[in-house]
Amino acid sequence: MSEDSDLLYHVNGELVPADEAAVSVRDRGFMYGDAAFETLRAYGGDVFRWGTHADRLRETCDVIALDHGLSDADLKARVDETLRGNELDDAYVRLSVTRGVQPGKLTPGEAVDPTIVVLVKPLPRGGRGSDPAWDGPASLQTVKTRRVPDRSIPARAKTHNYLNGILARLELRVTDADEAVMLDSEGRLAEGATSNLFFVREDALCTPSLDGPVLPGVTRAEVLDIAAEEGIPVRERAFTPDDLRNAAEAFVTNTTWEVRPVESVDGIDVGGGPVTMLLSRVFDDRVEREHYADDATEPNGQ
Amino acid sequence: MSEDSDLLYHVNGELVPADEAAVSVRDRGFMYGDAAFETLRAYGGDVFRWGTHADRLRETCDVIALDHGLSDADLKARVDETLRGNELDDAYVRLSVTRGVQPGKLTPGEAVDPTIVVLVKPLPRGGRGSDPAWDGPASLQTVKTRRVPDRSIPARAKTHNYLNGILARLELRVTDADEAVMLDSEGRLAEGATSNLFFVREDALCTPSLDGPVLPGVTRAEVLDIAAEEGIPVRERAFTPDDLRNAAEAFVTNTTWEVRPVESVDGIDVGGGPVTMLLSRVFDDRVEREHYADDATEPNGQ
Repeated sequence: MSEDSDLLYHVNGELVPADEAAVSVRDRGFMYGDAAFETLRAYGGDVFRWGTHADRLRETCDVIALDHGLSDADLKARVDETLRGNELDDAYVRLSVTRGVQPGKLTPGEAVDPTIVVLVKPLPRGGRGSDPAWDGPASLQTVKTRRVPDRSIPARAKTHNYLNGILARLELRVTDADEAVMLDSEGRLAEGATSNLFFVREDALCTPSLDGPVLPGVTRAEVLDIAAEEGIPVRERAFTPDDLRNAAEAFVTNTTWEVRPVESVDGIDVGGGPVTMLLSRVFDDRVEREHYADDATEPNGQ
Repeated sequence: MSEDSDLLYHVNGELVPADEAAVSVRDRGFMYGDAAFETLRAYGGDVFRWGTHADRLRETCDVIALDHGLSDADLKARVDETLRGNELDDAYVRLSVTRGVQPGKLTPGEAVDPTIVVLVKPLPRGGRGSDPAWDGPASLQTVKTRRVPDRSIPARAKTHNYLNGILARLELRVTDADEAVMLDSEGRLAEGATSNLFFVREDALCTPSLDGPVLPGVTRAEVLDIAAEEGIPVRERAFTPDDLRNAAEAFVTNTTWEVRPVESVDGIDVGGGPVTMLLSRVFDDRVEREHYADDATEPNGQ
């Protein structure tokens, strides 16, 4: 029995008790990590920015030539069924699409009978005045493990091949840090093991551009949208580790953490500040308005 | 029902029908490809070079800090039980060790309750006069997908993160080739998607050295051992794609294929030759002597 044994997961169209939810040992998602996934967050019973996540999942499947044949609406229905089946309004959700079981060896067959899995876990509500999903500000440490280059596996594909980030996190065992800063092959800032990097220098919001091996995070895009709305200058380009270490403010983003302030980088105090607070506040306002307000409506087409 | 539905697989200590053999959707081997594996071949009821495979599996687990706590003998016993349970003497075997189910997210916990899976499939005998496991000589094509650099994920780790090779193989869909030649970040020869590269130039046997992102193949090591025994000069160093294209002979190796001649590289005829034939013949002799001969004995400590 696990900590999640009261939950139901969605596996190939059926809700099953978490402890019984399984995939074949011949599933390519297991044998090779040959699968796409999205980490989602549900607020007030609805997934935040479903459309953006669905677009990215489609992009991942394009990169790995996984033609699963399911519509976005079908995938969304499975996520919704999982939330309702668990009576969960506020939750972490992981949606995986694998290439399923195929005869033969490494070369994928074109005909795919995909495996579709939805995992959920309760996660306290977001929005205005909510408690964050993290225990405290992030402590970052630059690690030796370099981000996989786009020419080897494109970073815009979010797949079950996550060992690169795991090796980065393993380096943190001998430190007090809880997120790894990964550099690209040339030593420029790329991203965290599970987060995008942001920092403030000379009153501009800085983040490594998607020209490098950087996952196009959904929260990253949201933050950039908020910055544009608020008139904060943005610099998306290549940066060095020193640019981050010498920043006035820094924060990391992902779907679970939302906007998480950084307290230190490589042992150097950095800390949050007014720009981080403003972006975080507006993010919470958007969640509140779209998911919890009395007049909450469907987000505009996303 | 699958093609393998009459087989039994070994999952966490039990033999189960192949169609029921499954792992939790929360197993890190499924979620992240956080697992080590070996492809083995059994001849005459015994795994070839078990000791070398066990060493490499241990090396993989060291790289990903997976302390599974099982002895080589325990792992070997599970492989042997699977072969006997299926009454298989000549077989393909895949042994996987995953970090199992752990609470929390990407960062691995130190306490591991591993998942151990053994898959088998009948594969006709090797040894003298046997038919090879491949349909014909390999047709190679250099692909754009570059091997993951060692600084991102060390190539000596054989893990469930196999998308890099899958992307390489996907590039072959528009070609007649059946194995991808992958280059390193600097454009030097690395290896095939599932094989090591060998070729003959100026009467020397050439193969990319392990200084590059190259898996230390068990068959690769066997071929180098045979070359030393036969007095064939060996060059292990960095090579360019043209070195391979202009070779007098070429072949690829892996545990399933053994020594497989190459008929063309990037559409250029290369073909086998006397060195390839000699190495293949001696390889078969070793299999015959150690696994099928009337006086077959346990291989010398390997």
